[in-house]
Amino acid sequence: MPKIDQEAIDLVRKRDQSLLKPNGSLGVLEELVEWVAGWQGSYPPRVDTLSLSIFISNHETANNHAISPFPTSVTEALVKSFRSDHAVVNQICKTHNIGLQVFDLAIEMPTNDITLAPAMLENDCITTILYGREALSSNPDILCLGDAGIGNTTISSAICSALYGGEIDEWVGPGTGASQEMIQKKIEVIKKSQEIHPNRDPFEILRCFGGREFAAILGAILAARFERVPVVLDGFPVCAAAAILHSISPSSIDHCYVGHRSAEPGHSKLLEKINKIPLIDLKMRLGEGSGAAMAMPIIMSAVNIHNNTSTFEEANVPNQK
Amino acid sequence: MPKIDQEAIDLVRKRDQSLLKPNGSLGVLEELVEWVAGWQGSYPPRVDTLSLSIFISNHETANNHAISPFPTSVTEALVKSFRSDHAVVNQICKTHNIGLQVFDLAIEMPTNDITLAPAMLENDCITTILYGREALSSNPDILCLGDAGIGNTTISSAICSALYGGEIDEWVGPGTGASQEMIQKKIEVIKKSQEIHPNRDPFEILRCFGGREFAAILGAILAARFERVPVVLDGFPVCAAAAILHSISPSSIDHCYVGHRSAEPGHSKLLEKINKIPLIDLKMRLGEGSGAAMAMPIIMSAVNIHNNTSTFEEANVPNQK
Repeated sequence: MPKIDQEAIDLVRKRDQSLLKPNGSLGVLEELVEWVAGWQGSYPPRVDTLSLSIFISNHETANNHAISPFPTSVTEALVKSFRSDHAVVNQICKTHNIGLQVFDLAIEMPTNDITLAPAMLENDCITTILYGREALSSNPDILCLGDAGIGNTTISSAICSALYGGEIDEWVGPGTGASQEMIQKKIEVIKKSQEIHPNRDPFEILRCFGGREFAAILGAILAARFERVPVVLDGFPVCAAAAILHSISPSSIDHCYVGHRSAEPGHSKLLEKINKIPLIDLKMRLGEGSGAAMAMPIIMSAVNIHNNTSTFEEANVPNQK
Repeated sequence: MPKIDQEAIDLVRKRDQSLLKPNGSLGVLEELVEWVAGWQGSYPPRVDTLSLSIFISNHETANNHAISPFPTSVTEALVKSFRSDHAVVNQICKTHNIGLQVFDLAIEMPTNDITLAPAMLENDCITTILYGREALSSNPDILCLGDAGIGNTTISSAICSALYGGEIDEWVGPGTGASQEMIQKKIEVIKKSQEIHPNRDPFEILRCFGGREFAAILGAILAARFERVPVVLDGFPVCAAAAILHSISPSSIDHCYVGHRSAEPGHSKLLEKINKIPLIDLKMRLGEGSGAAMAMPIIMSAVNIHNNTSTFEEANVPNQK
């Protein structure tokens, strides 16, 4: 698995020290430039082609149990709205010139109710992981990953609870706006599913509890690593998919930054487990990759500052006394 | 003084509730849209013309005392670099299509050493406040305010310490990278200046301790209020100028958002005093308006989402069960 490129990082540090600003005065932006160049494995870092891939799936669990205020038919309507430029995430992408790719993972065939059977057959799970590579088809310099699918915060909670243990209710939250009754229902669904799926191997957790968006996102993260594309993760479901990889090998998600801290309480708990600090915290809890896309302008600025600011020498400015 | 426009806010809330997203799922972005429309006093909110004005001044205090690692000649060099597109803030503005205006406040005539005399004569102070209105000359929909000037974090600390009291060292920090010795010098300078300028009227604090950038920024904030332009404040010096107004009447800076929490410790302390929560926190401590400009893409996204996302009805999506 490719590692971070120390040579690229050294080149970043060398130029950074000569730029027309006090040393260290750009804080997190300086780390971001090292992260981009280091994982791209080349210098200078690039932010010319930016892409957000949203993976979308349906869950029979949401059809069978009252765990969401929205019917699962909304998932199909969301795919249409993403494709016709109507949704929230479209406006963010247009504002910041981020290309948007929308992947419908057979939403007409929801994955199984996890209280009754594994979500996916092995073959379905593996095929979907491989399909995740499609996120790279536009050759982005940086890849943002997002999700949509009614019911998938419950699935995220189920995955985290199986991976990390702890009280189930600590992993459960309101998602798109679940009532207290619905949240109670989420806990019951997860409890029952844990009883019938006792295997705690991370890939088995993905297959038994997950939906296709989790498998595809995991595959996209892996493919990006091999193709040296830095990744910006969105909220709770995307980070739950990343957590599967992290559980197998923590360094496997070192090329990932988390864009935004979701208002969904499980996300903060999960970020501690995968050891990630998000770039921004705007109390959003929408999904659609919106949190990742909102963080992109910061990364774009950081790289453009690094590449285009003059050095003290070039600008003929006296440096420190 | 114009107040926030409740009618515009009501129109924002009405449309927000019908947009294709769960209610409340955009967190801070929803507040931002109300803030923009409410202070623009019209609907829909606009983010077509964005502008950053940087006010730049020199301080004899920095010439006479070893309070900064940079010579005051850097101030002039910075003006040149802003004007030739070489500095950090130029790259941020270009990335996000923010117009940049650079105001050189007679840097060849530094304001007085505050340990010896009031920084400005009354006439200089008032004229500079009035000059701040120039920040509005490009008719921006939203105005960002920034500062530059070697020595002006010391002046910021002096203003805050005079306005709010407390131990002087709690208001003092490394600025552009001052050593412990320089920080000690800053404290001595402020202590001495407080002894010779005992008047604690906010405008007298501005005149005696301030430099011209503080006066101009105060004037720009006031002019923006009267012309119904929402304002995004940068770090410690800009917020210190805003604090003068806040001390006279807290509601006078209600039309201001703080873009970024500076790494300069006095900024966090000051934000508590003026009751502002910054949009982002990236540990930057550069000045130049860079923190305000970095926050602008979030505000642009928020307004574009509000104006351009479809409603559930328009997109033919079933709303909650």
